[in-house]
Amino acid sequence: MTQVPVNTSVLNENQRIAGRLRDEFAASGTLCLNFISSPGSGKTALLEKTLEFLPREVRAAVLTGDLQTDNDARRLARYGYPVRQITTVGACHLDARMVEKHLEGWRLADIDLLLIENVGNLVCPTSYELGEEAKIVVLSVTEGEDKPLKYPGIFRKAQLMILNKIDLLPYVPFEAELARENARRIHPEIEIIETSCTSGAGLDTWMDWLQRRMAHKAPRAAAAGVETYF
Amino acid sequence: MTQVPVNTSVLNENQRIAGRLRDEFAASGTLCLNFISSPGSGKTALLEKTLEFLPREVRAAVLTGDLQTDNDARRLARYGYPVRQITTVGACHLDARMVEKHLEGWRLADIDLLLIENVGNLVCPTSYELGEEAKIVVLSVTEGEDKPLKYPGIFRKAQLMILNKIDLLPYVPFEAELARENARRIHPEIEIIETSCTSGAGLDTWMDWLQRRMAHKAPRAAAAGVETYF
Repeated sequence: MTQVPVNTSVLNENQRIAGRLRDEFAASGTLCLNFISSPGSGKTALLEKTLEFLPREVRAAVLTGDLQTDNDARRLARYGYPVRQITTVGACHLDARMVEKHLEGWRLADIDLLLIENVGNLVCPTSYELGEEAKIVVLSVTEGEDKPLKYPGIFRKAQLMILNKIDLLPYVPFEAELARENARRIHPEIEIIETSCTSGAGLDTWMDWLQRRMAHKAPRAAAAGVETYF
Repeated sequence: MTQVPVNTSVLNENQRIAGRLRDEFAASGTLCLNFISSPGSGKTALLEKTLEFLPREVRAAVLTGDLQTDNDARRLARYGYPVRQITTVGACHLDARMVEKHLEGWRLADIDLLLIENVGNLVCPTSYELGEEAKIVVLSVTEGEDKPLKYPGIFRKAQLMILNKIDLLPYVPFEAELARENARRIHPEIEIIETSCTSGAGLDTWMDWLQRRMAHKAPRAAAAGVETYF
């Protein structure tokens, strides 16, 4: 069987940079999350809602990857947090070097939460660590329940699956219970939250998850009281 | 900017094999189509409808790519045509060698129409020719109108865009006219057909397109009368 022509040395170099980023995020108390999904599953809309509902004392920043446009960065910049577009010029995933380069000029000590929106692709981004604390896979209910079985790599690595666009459940032949079962067949411990950015359903659960993760992460900032913005 | 680590020699080797396949398809009068889309845009359902509505005298065959499962092959095999699964074991696209290998034992002279369902991925399959006469990109209306701008490579190379799941238009914030405009900004000559495999809308237009392409392709088989099946 022909294997994907990913150069091992490229992956090793990526691991090295990702390790450095992970150390830096640990030192600064920054929670870094890497969002991965198919094109059009609603990652950007989910991040918009996240920025909208985030308590104002949380100092968030966003890196958003795209092959070509800066549409997503413009959408996300409206919420008043620092946002940078990573345009990959055709590359099918973000890598750690792109993240490192696009963090230049930002003080990590001033970032409690770094949200990274990967290129829309369920396959390739899985292999490239970005120094994140957790990968979050977003699956929309229009994509079919079988996706965890067909793209097991990302469902195995993700700590959380966000099952999105649940407002469309009445109109599509999608069994949410089967999707959950399939995800757990691949990754028994995966957490699952169901959301709709249109109706708002489940967003409170998602924001609770996020805040629980942040509470573990940045006790110093919370204790000191946060005053500076970018 | 970091580039995708695709080895040029890998692409050159792929082009060489794809060229050989293209010659073989031309010699046998086989119309080969390469279907590319995001995961969950409805490629398999479209191929199911295609096989269901195909005139019985057309000798079709299907190769369907997937990272891990043979779900799609099992779905497609129900229509009585020869179907083979290409399991890429993690690779994010089909390549010409996989196609060549999985054609072994089939007589191309007995295949009028070869449908190849690529791995669900809007990026990587674009770079790998499979000897096909045309690429067809499938975009579902749940994915957003901006996808042609964000993933221009495939929309530039595809001869036809199938805008699928139009039965969901009342429930999603999708402007079909804007999607068509975006596709034509990237590729002014792209043909566009709108379909729903749920309601059946547009499938007659798609089948007409397919039969027009086949009429140009296999006059010998049509004139001789087709008797042999696999």
